[in-house]
Amino acid sequence: MKIIIDAMGGDNAPLEFLKGGLRAARECQVDVVLVGRVAELLELMKQQGIETLPKGVELMDAEDVVDMHDDPATVHKKRKNSSMVLGLKLLADGGGDAFVSAGSTGALLSAATLVVKRVRGIRRAAFGPTLPTKTGNLVLIDAGANAECSPEFLLQFGCMGSFYAKKALGLESPRVGLLNNGAEDSKGDELHKAAYTLLRDAGERGVIQFVGNVEARDAMLGACDVLVADGFSGNVMLKSIEGTAMFMGSLIKRMFLKNWKTKLGYLLLKDGVKELTGMLDYNKVGGTMLLGICKPVIKAHGSSNADAVVGAVRQAVAAVESGICQDIRDHVAEMTLPKEEPHA
Amino acid sequence: MKIIIDAMGGDNAPLEFLKGGLRAARECQVDVVLVGRVAELLELMKQQGIETLPKGVELMDAEDVVDMHDDPATVHKKRKNSSMVLGLKLLADGGGDAFVSAGSTGALLSAATLVVKRVRGIRRAAFGPTLPTKTGNLVLIDAGANAECSPEFLLQFGCMGSFYAKKALGLESPRVGLLNNGAEDSKGDELHKAAYTLLRDAGERGVIQFVGNVEARDAMLGACDVLVADGFSGNVMLKSIEGTAMFMGSLIKRMFLKNWKTKLGYLLLKDGVKELTGMLDYNKVGGTMLLGICKPVIKAHGSSNADAVVGAVRQAVAAVESGICQDIRDHVAEMTLPKEEPHA
Repeated sequence: MKIIIDAMGGDNAPLEFLKGGLRAARECQVDVVLVGRVAELLELMKQQGIETLPKGVELMDAEDVVDMHDDPATVHKKRKNSSMVLGLKLLADGGGDAFVSAGSTGALLSAATLVVKRVRGIRRAAFGPTLPTKTGNLVLIDAGANAECSPEFLLQFGCMGSFYAKKALGLESPRVGLLNNGAEDSKGDELHKAAYTLLRDAGERGVIQFVGNVEARDAMLGACDVLVADGFSGNVMLKSIEGTAMFMGSLIKRMFLKNWKTKLGYLLLKDGVKELTGMLDYNKVGGTMLLGICKPVIKAHGSSNADAVVGAVRQAVAAVESGICQDIRDHVAEMTLPKEEPHA
Repeated sequence: MKIIIDAMGGDNAPLEFLKGGLRAARECQVDVVLVGRVAELLELMKQQGIETLPKGVELMDAEDVVDMHDDPATVHKKRKNSSMVLGLKLLADGGGDAFVSAGSTGALLSAATLVVKRVRGIRRAAFGPTLPTKTGNLVLIDAGANAECSPEFLLQFGCMGSFYAKKALGLESPRVGLLNNGAEDSKGDELHKAAYTLLRDAGERGVIQFVGNVEARDAMLGACDVLVADGFSGNVMLKSIEGTAMFMGSLIKRMFLKNWKTKLGYLLLKDGVKELTGMLDYNKVGGTMLLGICKPVIKAHGSSNADAVVGAVRQAVAAVESGICQDIRDHVAEMTLPKEEPHA
């Protein structure tokens, strides 16, 4: 198996991506292609005391880098020699099995869609990060790829999320909920009411196990395994969780620093505190798969360090092994509205 | 000053509302009218060992109660003898200065709009709860009253939220942000792009201090004092914060219960932990004001106990004293689009 890594995207590129890539090749026992400015990468390797490329590691030259300010829609043209676009081309051409990048989310979504292409019949690719909850894990889909959605997009997010949860969380029949502003059937705006009907029908056809509307609070407490969201409110939820966790983390820190008694308390609780803050540290999670693209594309967190890169590569390996992309391809007819695709 | 309390709404009605109402009259030095089934209230009083009504406390009979399953839109007609509707009528008729209820949110919003009426020119009333953040407090408006919004609604939420933050948080020039899926100017769907323009213009006219698009995470870390949201994503944010706080609370509890060392740690940290969990316990906050209604209407949390009732009454008193409703009335022209109100 060969994993392609964008060595130039993210706040800590290229050093942490070089380090992470080299470690991933060793630890995950896969071949790795690092795409970026080769001269710079070789220089960094030398600084790290590595004279020759380890077995299974290749470098591929890309003179350009996608910038956070680039317009996502035109990156595939205007930055065609960037590490992101060349890496995606390599994936599309069969030069690797999956692609990992910590570059601009919008650019990655757009370039992956245009270069690697969506699965035929899938209307939009979506981000489906796995979040910890009180009772287990939750796939939140879409977490921000699509600010504007149609009811059919949400149906497809629910089905893709369900397949993904089967593979990634090992669940036989994931409980799929619709993120809404109340649990009652009639809740939400027009989009969510229409999506509710489509998801309920998919549930009745046995395509997914639909558990109805779910409020964000109840999802965090374990009410479902997959939470379907339009990309706007999915993003609001993801960022609210992140912000609350950071805020509470600062409160916990303040609590421990109060006086000698609390500092002693900290010493007794050190391991537990690390576990607690680590659980909600999205940097350590690794990455988020872009579901609906023909081949596995993993978005790593923008502030990824070498650990996070290894985590993202692990996730890429798992995605390849699981056959999730083929799964979505095989079942696309079940999640497509007949009216909008009359030739299906 | 006279505060009207719906004694029958909420999970712990009527006992906690009776207790809270009696305490509030004493502690806040205001007159209180408890609206509900008088026979039941008198019986409960007797059980509490109170034989006569304390000075400044009145009971007003209402034979009916609004149910959580009632259709909010028709409550004012179908439940016209309910404690909620009769309490609102009393407020509208000048029989009190503010109204507090822990009953159904949707019903309260609808009945307050129809019975007490919106300020002339205000398109929709909105919920604006005050949430703790890393650096202070945040007014989130709208937190769930309006699932579907127009750009003008969001403009008005921003202006009303700003007036409210001046009064409630004592800020001279509150920083108003727009909840969006990114901080860049161009972010969001059509609604948020249009709302951005309106809010920016209001900022340029000096009506508010607009600080641009704000992500949920940054708002939790203190990026603004007022966060403008459509009611759908505002609700998602509110519930995500609540769910994350509850989830983290359970993790903290688990951490303390691990072994004798961690239990000892808990003893050393007890006060700090209570402070921490209390800070994110929405039951203790009291209530949320319904902004845009002619007179102060406060929604108390559905699971309010007597403490929360006292908190909500305090908030009602502060709302009356601040003159926030008059403030909104005086400035409504600045937050109304001329095209939609040609006679203005």
